[in-house]
Amino acid sequence: MKLIRFGELNKEKPGVLIDGKAYDVTGLGDDYNEQFFETGGLDRLEAYIADNKAALKPIPDGVRIGSPVARPSKIVCIGLNYADHAKETGAALPPEPVVFMKSTTALAGPFDNIVIPRNSKKTDWEVELAVVIGKKASYVEESEAMDYVAGYCLHNDVSEREFQIERNGTWDKGKGCDTFAPMGPWLVTKEEVSNPDNLRLWLKVNGKTMQDGNTSNFIFRVPFLISYLSQFMTLLPGDIISTGTPAGVGLGMNPQVYLQEGDVVELGIDGLGEATQNVVAYKKEG
Amino acid sequence: MKLIRFGELNKEKPGVLIDGKAYDVTGLGDDYNEQFFETGGLDRLEAYIADNKAALKPIPDGVRIGSPVARPSKIVCIGLNYADHAKETGAALPPEPVVFMKSTTALAGPFDNIVIPRNSKKTDWEVELAVVIGKKASYVEESEAMDYVAGYCLHNDVSEREFQIERNGTWDKGKGCDTFAPMGPWLVTKEEVSNPDNLRLWLKVNGKTMQDGNTSNFIFRVPFLISYLSQFMTLLPGDIISTGTPAGVGLGMNPQVYLQEGDVVELGIDGLGEATQNVVAYKKEG
Repeated sequence: MKLIRFGELNKEKPGVLIDGKAYDVTGLGDDYNEQFFETGGLDRLEAYIADNKAALKPIPDGVRIGSPVARPSKIVCIGLNYADHAKETGAALPPEPVVFMKSTTALAGPFDNIVIPRNSKKTDWEVELAVVIGKKASYVEESEAMDYVAGYCLHNDVSEREFQIERNGTWDKGKGCDTFAPMGPWLVTKEEVSNPDNLRLWLKVNGKTMQDGNTSNFIFRVPFLISYLSQFMTLLPGDIISTGTPAGVGLGMNPQVYLQEGDVVELGIDGLGEATQNVVAYKKEG
Repeated sequence: MKLIRFGELNKEKPGVLIDGKAYDVTGLGDDYNEQFFETGGLDRLEAYIADNKAALKPIPDGVRIGSPVARPSKIVCIGLNYADHAKETGAALPPEPVVFMKSTTALAGPFDNIVIPRNSKKTDWEVELAVVIGKKASYVEESEAMDYVAGYCLHNDVSEREFQIERNGTWDKGKGCDTFAPMGPWLVTKEEVSNPDNLRLWLKVNGKTMQDGNTSNFIFRVPFLISYLSQFMTLLPGDIISTGTPAGVGLGMNPQVYLQEGDVVELGIDGLGEATQNVVAYKKEG
């Protein structure tokens, strides 16, 4: 299945994509959140679609698409998980995964604007495969890790490099600004993704290809990452693990290139859809 | 007011402490979560207590006390915020705050056990003043920052030093294990804390005083921290900022001392109550 959420930010409703068309499944009475995944929501959704297929209402064109997952308990990210990206940033190959967290307030829809934070000079892009956890995971063995996956999403792990690297803190400081986690368009359930460790992923800025990689170049693969993280913290249903980015980020260029107001970012992953984000400057509300 | 939550983990009910006695306020129909703080819950609670004071039911002795705040959207922590602690860890004085995040699954009650994670050799203690955010904060000025505070809690920022420092990642890896954020006993609302930047805080292990500091030794004070963090991420009502620990952690000793099964940790902050945590080894569930 392909799950979507639509409507106003933080008031999204659930939908599904069937044969390329989006349908409203508000009647299911669920949002795609922790409780949904924890209580067998994917099975309920499948049954609901089967029972109501003829009666499902299409979602009108032009409606905003939100993150396909409601705000999770956490967004855990892996740094430097592609050898080519580690090299471009000047970092050594990590002996074990680099882990950091994104404030969940960064979550945004796949076509929402990326807002350059106030005082930012180095807002950068990172196309990533995001894994959505399906059930509570603590001390999970690698051989059983895939049982804990609900599905996958396209994610742009937007990063402010000065905040991340030059401001005396852990990376979290440059990863959690509002709009820095555009997610989606879809959550694709795992049975539709035959091998998450072999997916092409790409990102363009103003039509120019910046990143063009494949998850086959992961240093640490999805089952290992789930098992590894679950040794350090309990993963909850609906939690998001973002698996790192391939080469081609602005930080790695010579001279470095960062996002500017008016830029257009397009990105995609095989089978997980495409997203487009316009870049705007921060403006004070009100 | 002094807010408490009581009952089974993740099923806690709201209560209040009046003249040293704990009362059930389940009738309010709220939990102390994001929605509560966002919608003027503290005012509702005050009115509820005034209207029902004679009829409030005491909470029976022996009932478990939980974290006084329900699971927040995030627990943001400040590292090295006391000069004496920075010195004992061998770190330079930070030119601006070190920021990291704790998985919210680490949240625990003030008298719950601290569980030493599997394969942990260096589980350490950190008594800290935690600030609970009362309203959504983004790009807040330092002069207005205190308007965004709901209150304060006692927090033990339990830390696995090997995971945090020696395992090739940001600090987040050693901060978010289950039970690593015992919070409470109370949330003390801000009008009862005349100066959060002048509170004694202490921690004992097996009766021996390990930490005995005062928040007057903060490098970065509470209003500055709120303003600073709000430049990097939006703080939501109910979010927790933990403000760093004074000298006296196990990492800073020579030789280093870490928690062992059977140890008893006691800690307290002036006006915010005291907590006791027994240290146990991880045991596989079931």
